Amino acid sequence: MNFNSDNVVGASPEIIAALAAANQGAVPSYGEDALTARVTKRFCNLFERDVAVFPVATGTAANALCLAACTPPWGVVYCHREAHVAVDECGAPEFYTGGAKLALLDGEHAKLAPGALDAALASAGGGVVHHAQPAAVSVSQATEAGAVYAPDELAALARVAHAHGAALHVDGARFANALVALGCSAAEATWRAGVDVLSFGATKNGALAAEAIVVFDPALAETIGYRRKRAGHLFSKLRFLSAQLEAYLADDLWLRNARHANAMAARAAEGLARLANRGVTLVHPVEANELFVRLPEPVRAGLAADGFLFHGWGAPPAGPDGGVVRLVTSWCTDPADVAALVARAAHHAGAHP
Amino acid sequence: MNFNSDNVVGASPEIIAALAAANQGAVPSYGEDALTARVTKRFCNLFERDVAVFPVATGTAANALCLAACTPPWGVVYCHREAHVAVDECGAPEFYTGGAKLALLDGEHAKLAPGALDAALASAGGGVVHHAQPAAVSVSQATEAGAVYAPDELAALARVAHAHGAALHVDGARFANALVALGCSAAEATWRAGVDVLSFGATKNGALAAEAIVVFDPALAETIGYRRKRAGHLFSKLRFLSAQLEAYLADDLWLRNARHANAMAARAAEGLARLANRGVTLVHPVEANELFVRLPEPVRAGLAADGFLFHGWGAPPAGPDGGVVRLVTSWCTDPADVAALVARAAHHAGAHP
Amino acid sequence: MNFNSDNVVGASPEIIAALAAANQGAVPSYGEDALTARVTKRFCNLFERDVAVFPVATGTAANALCLAACTPPWGVVYCHREAHVAVDECGAPEFYTGGAKLALLDGEHAKLAPGALDAALASAGGGVVHHAQPAAVSVSQATEAGAVYAPDELAALARVAHAHGAALHVDGARFANALVALGCSAAEATWRAGVDVLSFGATKNGALAAEAIVVFDPALAETIGYRRKRAGHLFSKLRFLSAQLEAYLADDLWLRNARHANAMAARAAEGLARLANRGVTLVHPVEANELFVRLPEPVRAGLAADGFLFHGWGAPPAGPDGGVVRLVTSWCTDPADVAALVARAAHHAGAHP
Amino acid sequence: MNFNSDNVVGASPEIIAALAAANQGAVPSYGEDALTARVTKRFCNLFERDVAVFPVATGTAANALCLAACTPPWGVVYCHREAHVAVDECGAPEFYTGGAKLALLDGEHAKLAPGALDAALASAGGGVVHHAQPAAVSVSQATEAGAVYAPDELAALARVAHAHGAALHVDGARFANALVALGCSAAEATWRAGVDVLSFGATKNGALAAEAIVVFDPALAETIGYRRKRAGHLFSKLRFLSAQLEAYLADDLWLRNARHANAMAARAAEGLARLANRGVTLVHPVEANELFVRLPEPVRAGLAADGFLFHGWGAPPAGPDGGVVRLVTSWCTDPADVAALVARAAHHAGAHP
Repeated sequence: MNFNSDNVVGASPEIIAALAAANQGAVPSYGEDALTARVTKRFCNLFERDVAVFPVATGTAANALCLAACTPPWGVVYCHREAHVAVDECGAPEFYTGGAKLALLDGEHAKLAPGALDAALASAGGGVVHHAQPAAVSVSQATEAGAVYAPDELAALARVAHAHGAALHVDGARFANALVALGCSAAEATWRAGVDVLSFGATKNGALAAEAIVVFDPALAETIGYRRKRAGHLFSKLRFLSAQLEAYLADDLWLRNARHANAMAARAAEGLARLANRGVTLVHPVEANELFVRLPEPVRAGLAADGFLFHGWGAPPAGPDGGVVRLVTSWCTDPADVAALVARAAHHAGAHP
Repeated sequence: MNFNSDNVVGASPEIIAALAAANQGAVPSYGEDALTARVTKRFCNLFERDVAVFPVATGTAANALCLAACTPPWGVVYCHREAHVAVDECGAPEFYTGGAKLALLDGEHAKLAPGALDAALASAGGGVVHHAQPAAVSVSQATEAGAVYAPDELAALARVAHAHGAALHVDGARFANALVALGCSAAEATWRAGVDVLSFGATKNGALAAEAIVVFDPALAETIGYRRKRAGHLFSKLRFLSAQLEAYLADDLWLRNARHANAMAARAAEGLARLANRGVTLVHPVEANELFVRLPEPVRAGLAADGFLFHGWGAPPAGPDGGVVRLVTSWCTDPADVAALVARAAHHAGAHP
Repeated sequence: MNFNSDNVVGASPEIIAALAAANQGAVPSYGEDALTARVTKRFCNLFERDVAVFPVATGTAANALCLAACTPPWGVVYCHREAHVAVDECGAPEFYTGGAKLALLDGEHAKLAPGALDAALASAGGGVVHHAQPAAVSVSQATEAGAVYAPDELAALARVAHAHGAALHVDGARFANALVALGCSAAEATWRAGVDVLSFGATKNGALAAEAIVVFDPALAETIGYRRKRAGHLFSKLRFLSAQLEAYLADDLWLRNARHANAMAARAAEGLARLANRGVTLVHPVEANELFVRLPEPVRAGLAADGFLFHGWGAPPAGPDGGVVRLVTSWCTDPADVAALVARAAHHAGAHP
Repeated sequence: MNFNSDNVVGASPEIIAALAAANQGAVPSYGEDALTARVTKRFCNLFERDVAVFPVATGTAANALCLAACTPPWGVVYCHREAHVAVDECGAPEFYTGGAKLALLDGEHAKLAPGALDAALASAGGGVVHHAQPAAVSVSQATEAGAVYAPDELAALARVAHAHGAALHVDGARFANALVALGCSAAEATWRAGVDVLSFGATKNGALAAEAIVVFDPALAETIGYRRKRAGHLFSKLRFLSAQLEAYLADDLWLRNARHANAMAARAAEGLARLANRGVTLVHPVEANELFVRLPEPVRAGLAADGFLFHGWGAPPAGPDGGVVRLVTSWCTDPADVAALVARAAHHAGAHP
């Protein structure tokens, strides 16, 4: 009954099996193997165009390499105040870019709004040497509040970014969850909407440790090979990253996993929403696989005592309204756990079944 | 018949099995899991003292983090001219340290010599702001020429390094191969000889992608957690790195793997040494799992045509003596391949059986 | 009639004379000269304690070196949203620290408030590797809004900073202006209030190009010599920086200059304040040598047409209230210019004399 | 009688006078002033083409900014083992480039040789991500051994550099000394020979603290404005750097100063050469304003006791041949000091007049 994160669970059996299957014979190292070539081709098919693909092991590496490819040391990356790149990566973007700035913007549900972005970029002092220079816009898909950008929302941000000479990066740690929520193609959710570079996540959605940097703008890809090597993120036995990605994409495993996670979140949301008159409140729309719920303190404490694991979010509980907690479902969340969560929340909230 | 490197082969079955075994249930992420704690304890036992352990996925990451922990941006790392950190990491030490220098020293069999090291450190301008400052000495164990430092050789280097305020780092990408060659304990080969920090390699010797930074000097460990996270090398599902390391150390798998690799190299060396009068010359002592052999061009070309894979090393072949090639054996080198290599070399060299 | 900045004017004649006087004979380079030693001693006297002193030529260099001495690459510097280090240095703190973050706080008159600072530091995730770590607090004295921190205000910030393990840095580009406004000693305005390191400005107040990094915490001084050299800020003919600083401190030139600048600002403020009923509004208290005035558009345009030079500040004028402009006085502002400014503003505002 | 360096002396009176003359009225800051525009124009005239000019205060800043403009973080700068950028800048190139490497080459009289350079570049692994990539070649004009590159020597190096995609940088801390030795035009000694970017020194040859980055390849100039600001090397009162440069170039002051320094060195060389049979040996040709002389220990000690100041160079004296010392003349070296040096050396060497 662990709802702490989608990274507390293991890997899909298909992916473990793929590792074992890839463990045959001697093959060229550092990505010169046939399996890695197949994965690149698969990504090209998925995105319906030529893309450059760089497998890495962590989302932080993917994000930092993407941003460094777009951003000079005197550049600025515009992102939401709660973005993972801003809050949870111990300054990885700053490290990889050689000291760029992150400009933190507000926005509902951890989404950037085109108007606020435009205002920030317009007042940045572009071209003036006293000021760090707009270089990239980074959005999370799904966002840190569990919301999803529609393609036209991304397109609006891309237009603003590009008008100011900035590239659009998507942190897709939960890209699969977003995509199944949108029901559109991977191409529509990315480059057709103006996205320049994507951190395509797999770890949170069933891989052991695998992400792919997917570059739509060829010019942005030129430096990534050197940056990846220099950062120690070029695996010698790269086939073991590629094998994860191949299995992840094969037979729509990634979409099936994400659909399950989203469905579990929706089910939990539906159950908890019925407790609104008991003070249980969803503070963000549940569009992917995360719930942010305000819980009266007795409910929170009761669920914790029951053994449900989840993280408090933002300010600690104060007063009768309680605080907000985050619940994350995953590719392997047990429906019984969701049912138990809803039932016990109802119990602690004093709702009659 | 691939002797290109010990990273062209896959992983030991035990390690694949360990991944599958670790893939059970939800556990805390980012290294807060029980398996990772067990691995740390195992390293403490192995080294017969408390050590700080940071699992990472690549040797370049391990080396760069180790060196960054010892070296300020205005520091100098002394290493052999052929060291992996100097030649093959696209400037990773420079990146992680924030711009330190590598001072390249000569030395037989890619080993540093205490006298040359002392001379370099003594003339470095320690304490003078115009000059980058001695901070670390990095040696490879086994070296890039396949040689092994005896504990007293390390101790002599450690004394010199410490006398100049520099830390001693060991790039142990092939630490297991060195250790079985030495026949001493892990403690004797490291901190008892004055080593401060070790890149403990596993990838080349049977893991998929796993290394451990092992820190003997507690003061050096303080910044590594932040540096690792910031570099994107803290795995969310860290159990999958730890599982590899646990299986690697269990039942002496690592030592058995290394013994096999070394034995295969020794057998090849023995066979090729018999062709000395035919111009086949071992240019370095074969102490671990690498051979450096000068091959008359017809022998080199003949072996290549036979399908043996290996890399040319250093200057390209010129003149009748031919050039040097590197042959690397691994935990899974087939003895039949070694026998074939020796036999075919003899054939091409015109030796009568 | 140039009120654009205090850096559009030249240097005090005494400082030009000091350069000529210092231009005698051969002396040791790189700060080993007697003049530089005298300057250090003078700073020790001024601050009534031993201090480490590093002359540099620009305020950006002084600030960036100070912050780098306190802040690891994974550190966070807390400062006001409008701080010079955040807005006007093209990312110099990020460059010198190796990629630290600046956390931008709000606060009236560009001052940090202890409560807001404490809240930010308390929620920073200190000790948790996922988050960049609190390292420094930087305040501007006088602030970018022309306000001055009293010693007890600094002490309150220092207590908060130190409680979270962060150092307190003062960007004293206008330290002299602040000090004469406060009427306290340099010691009271700095280390006695808990300040750890100070960018002691001289350029804006009568030097050609000279600032002094003054370090009260000896531990913070250790790396600055290397950092300064490595950044190209160690002058070979350092006597020419020291000569400026010596003349600046001699005979209270620095305080006399600052008193004049402040008096001119006060006189302008007094005159403009009489136009409050005509829509001319001082938006910040005038405590040092800067005025921030909301001018009805006809007044702004009229003054500009008269040839007065000043910068618009913040959002551009919109609607009948006009926008805000900044006026800066200096050590050599002509009282007649101030009188003319006030008179012409009154004229354009339609005030009867 | 200070022959320690050309930076122990002060500034030409013309340059002090120019500072005083520039100290008039209010002018735009940060290089937007008319004087700075005039200086740029003057450099265009001097070099007979459009050039981008960035005044800075130190040679280390000029060099580091030049190299950073050419070299990505994963780049390599090829230079002589004794180059100032390699030995005497505490890692400034590494800092400014974000962690590039310096590859140290040998060569007579501290000059790079085209053949050795070509060999190094050819074996660098260009295009292979494991290796740092050739990016720049940096030569010192005059060299650290006091030698001068002829234009055709530079052209040969430029051809090699450009063939490998590397830019050619000249560290011209003593460019004036080299130019008067060559007797050619500034254009011939730089871009006509293939130089891409030049650190044009003035400090050592009569300025207080002024150098100009001169960029011949417009593409290389794009980032320098941001880099200079970010490094704290954009002076607010930039007129005071420009005034030095204007006076330096006016009426051929720079060439006159350099001619004097070179003449004094030549005279000293001529006098000391007469002591060759007494063991006094010039170890490098004296082409600019530096002498490198092997002195029998009694001569060295005698001169030191007489009060002559100079630095030992390289290995300390050992054995009867003594060690090498460096003697540097300057724009204001007194001919009487040179005469005294020669006479006293003869005396200590036991030569009969």
